[in-house]
Amino acid sequence: MKASAKDGIDLQSGKGRVVALCGGVGGAKLAFGLSRVIGSDLTVVVNTGDDFEHLGLLISPDLDTVLYTLGGIANKELGWGRADESWNFMEALRHLGGEAWFQLGDRDLALHVERTHQLRSGRSLTDFMRTAAERHGIASKILPMSDDPVRTMVATSAGMLPFQRYFVEQRCAPEVNGIVFDGAAAALPSTEVLAALQAPDLRGIIICPSNPFLSIDPILAVPGIRKLLDAAQVPVVAVSPIIGGVAVKGPTVKIMDELGVPATSRAIAQHYGGLLHGLVIDEVDAAEGAEIGGRIHVTPTLMKSDEDRERLAREVLGFVDMIAADLQPRAKAVG
Amino acid sequence: MKASAKDGIDLQSGKGRVVALCGGVGGAKLAFGLSRVIGSDLTVVVNTGDDFEHLGLLISPDLDTVLYTLGGIANKELGWGRADESWNFMEALRHLGGEAWFQLGDRDLALHVERTHQLRSGRSLTDFMRTAAERHGIASKILPMSDDPVRTMVATSAGMLPFQRYFVEQRCAPEVNGIVFDGAAAALPSTEVLAALQAPDLRGIIICPSNPFLSIDPILAVPGIRKLLDAAQVPVVAVSPIIGGVAVKGPTVKIMDELGVPATSRAIAQHYGGLLHGLVIDEVDAAEGAEIGGRIHVTPTLMKSDEDRERLAREVLGFVDMIAADLQPRAKAVG
Repeated sequence: MKASAKDGIDLQSGKGRVVALCGGVGGAKLAFGLSRVIGSDLTVVVNTGDDFEHLGLLISPDLDTVLYTLGGIANKELGWGRADESWNFMEALRHLGGEAWFQLGDRDLALHVERTHQLRSGRSLTDFMRTAAERHGIASKILPMSDDPVRTMVATSAGMLPFQRYFVEQRCAPEVNGIVFDGAAAALPSTEVLAALQAPDLRGIIICPSNPFLSIDPILAVPGIRKLLDAAQVPVVAVSPIIGGVAVKGPTVKIMDELGVPATSRAIAQHYGGLLHGLVIDEVDAAEGAEIGGRIHVTPTLMKSDEDRERLAREVLGFVDMIAADLQPRAKAVG
Repeated sequence: MKASAKDGIDLQSGKGRVVALCGGVGGAKLAFGLSRVIGSDLTVVVNTGDDFEHLGLLISPDLDTVLYTLGGIANKELGWGRADESWNFMEALRHLGGEAWFQLGDRDLALHVERTHQLRSGRSLTDFMRTAAERHGIASKILPMSDDPVRTMVATSAGMLPFQRYFVEQRCAPEVNGIVFDGAAAALPSTEVLAALQAPDLRGIIICPSNPFLSIDPILAVPGIRKLLDAAQVPVVAVSPIIGGVAVKGPTVKIMDELGVPATSRAIAQHYGGLLHGLVIDEVDAAEGAEIGGRIHVTPTLMKSDEDRERLAREVLGFVDMIAADLQPRAKAVG
């Protein structure tokens, strides 16, 4: 609680609902912390740009990571999938000559099969995930950013690749020239997402430490969502996914390099631009804070344990409440 | 080899291709024996009337039983599914609140997912099963009776039930009044089935000891198949699934009772009527042989071990060859 105490954050002050925008693993860790602290007051709006169809099954990697993480059954060793997993399906699939580049655990598969079945029977992804979250004992809401398909396509040195082909099959090896969110322009945010962002008792909006280009931008690309963030009368705060020039997980830094963006929290702040009232950065980047300007909260942001996640969540909430007490126009806040 | 020697069957005489009509477990045991004896000369034409869609997956219980049995990976303890199976998918599915009345093992699931994917991509069931059989090292051909959907519906005291609902979910409890093969009239036998039944070097056609009403009748209901059996210039021989008034497996006797058919091999012979040149019955029913009339081969038909299966297969082949040497018009042969 060092950094919090230092910055005078009151960890108990806030009330009301919080919306967190989230991608996969890194973001889900903070979402887990927030879920532990505020439970049913949290709505996590999750990127579905990574969703794809594989073996005829509808797969939603970020939603599932958030589900498993908040449900306490994420596989911490692998960094994806479920804990206590078995792989007999994959072994039999390989034996049959099926496509085996994307790993599907036996337990994980139940989610994909049941979701595909329900969605093809006319149920919405939002509705299915609501039940799945309840079944996993999760008090917080987990919402797909949209029930309409949005597909992140990565323009690379190896051509235009669907995200999972780039990320999993090609292991992020091709150089990235650009990122496109197919379908985003025509996608509608669900009524649940719209309601969460316009809740009368909204306390704040938190952008989790996910990849801004691959995980958060698709959410912001869904028409209406960015506008609601811009219009929000509550603090919008991001947690930088960059710590000392590296990302904890995933290809964030490599992609920033390839897109000609320096791998710094300052670049993250510039990327989100006028959207933010405040940014949380790691203590190793404290010196950068002054350069970034605006409201900055400096604290350890590496989340190794559940306690780290909860501590950071409390600090971010405290930061939100501190900003709320003295809300200023955003365009000048961070830049 | 007692019975064979007694009846003067020469086990080595025959050459050429053999077609076996087959349902699930009981029939698959003889198909396994035949496959061991004549390998690539065997084509098994399998009932698909039990096929159904479950959780959005296309499931072909009899084809899969034949595939797993001939591939040497059938679960002999359960009597269905694969050996060395795990059930983590089912556990996770139940946790999600999915339909859990039909058990799908983790390894078994690979076949259903991959088949569904391939068929929805436009591949035929025949073509998919060819690859699956190759992948499982099976030299014999395993053919669905048709690539068109035929769905066995059971008229019961609990209403009209799709076969798997009757068989698995209701555990055959409702009384059967009749059986209908939805779609059979419009189904076409595949070119592979037609070719197998018209092979110039066809040695004989064997009806495996499957349930005549539920497993063999659907095959015979596909237009053209019965006609080709009627017109065949080779012996058509059945192995009775009834041993001393009971069936080794499944609801055969219960259904025969409910349909008002005595549970005897004689009734089996009458059911197939003019189709057969000969019938193989168990030694405990030897006395019935004389009543049935026509060509009867009496031998132990209970197949407990792989050796039992192979021995019975050799005897049935010998019986076929013996009949072939002296082929008579069928209408008078068995009745």
